[in-house]
Amino acid sequence: MRTAFHHRLGTLTEQLGAMCAMAGEAIGQATVALLNADLALAERVIAGQEDVVAVNARVEENAFTLLALQAPVATDLRAVVSGIRIATDAQRMRALAVHVPEIARMRHPRNAVPDDVRRHVAEMGEVAEQLAGVAREVLLDQDPRRAAQIRRDDDAMDELHHQLLAALVDPGWPHGVAAAVDVTLLGRFYERFADHAVQIARRVIFQATGH
Amino acid sequence: MRTAFHHRLGTLTEQLGAMCAMAGEAIGQATVALLNADLALAERVIAGQEDVVAVNARVEENAFTLLALQAPVATDLRAVVSGIRIATDAQRMRALAVHVPEIARMRHPRNAVPDDVRRHVAEMGEVAEQLAGVAREVLLDQDPRRAAQIRRDDDAMDELHHQLLAALVDPGWPHGVAAAVDVTLLGRFYERFADHAVQIARRVIFQATGH
Repeated sequence: MRTAFHHRLGTLTEQLGAMCAMAGEAIGQATVALLNADLALAERVIAGQEDVVAVNARVEENAFTLLALQAPVATDLRAVVSGIRIATDAQRMRALAVHVPEIARMRHPRNAVPDDVRRHVAEMGEVAEQLAGVAREVLLDQDPRRAAQIRRDDDAMDELHHQLLAALVDPGWPHGVAAAVDVTLLGRFYERFADHAVQIARRVIFQATGH
Repeated sequence: MRTAFHHRLGTLTEQLGAMCAMAGEAIGQATVALLNADLALAERVIAGQEDVVAVNARVEENAFTLLALQAPVATDLRAVVSGIRIATDAQRMRALAVHVPEIARMRHPRNAVPDDVRRHVAEMGEVAEQLAGVAREVLLDQDPRRAAQIRRDDDAMDELHHQLLAALVDPGWPHGVAAAVDVTLLGRFYERFADHAVQIARRVIFQATGH
């Protein structure tokens, strides 16, 4: 019974890791689609959301079966409940990764990102993708020593977001209000994506270490 | 055993309803603080977030105890798992309600909302507060007939958000980029608040009716 439980819990963890990987790949491609005004790639990232819904349904069913058939207690129960929450975060990350190419599609064939903030957006995309990777790795290896890296990446994202907003409200911003609205939303999407990845990693580390 | 379970499940539901009520009150006060540039009220809404963290901890413990001690199955188990997700949504609503007075505080003593979009923001605040109330009522009375009202309020919020963004990107927008950035973020906070309230109501109705 314990073995069956831990086998299934291992499957749940792998599924959660796969959800993080899908979200990370999506935000990476979303950023490429955005910066290159690549409509075909934007459409692919948007369409890929359907796969995530299917994976998420399997994760939910798996967590539910774990609770229903095995009635875990203590640490095992906390691991399943934590898994349910992590699935919500990972699904939200993938949804945020769809909002980025949605803006690219809306502005196509124009590029939604003015040159002045191109580098910021590219870096936010990189940090977001990296954080999804870290969340996945923390899930799979449960190594709390990654906490420092998560904090570094999280701080990097905050700093990039701060710089991005500063560039927008600079009186010298020459691209008008409409472009600023798009970039404001894009910045928010990347920041929230990163927040969820950090949240996942923190849940796992808390689960493993108690703090 | 069944009675103890359902008593505790009833407590969980009441706690979730209280979380929705707190979020609704917070977004209402947040909107007043924002529109009046009322710094004292803004600070109170921000500080109130601490109470929510405490309530949320009790909800989590309650859900956890339900699973650990009663090992519910089938519908009862789904109700508890659904409760865990609802707590996440309600907590997020309250966090979004803090972002609104944070912008008010940042711009004080200036009013962050230009007169042109004051009415939109006020209405978004009203619809958001109303949706929190509906989510609470659906939780407490499990009445699926409210689904139509939720859809109406959700559509109203989408329309307001759409109008708000249209006002910002109108070439006649006279308030500059910095104000537009603030209003863009505010619009996003209200829209996300509403999304979470709708999500809660949908979960409850799905739980009660299966669709």
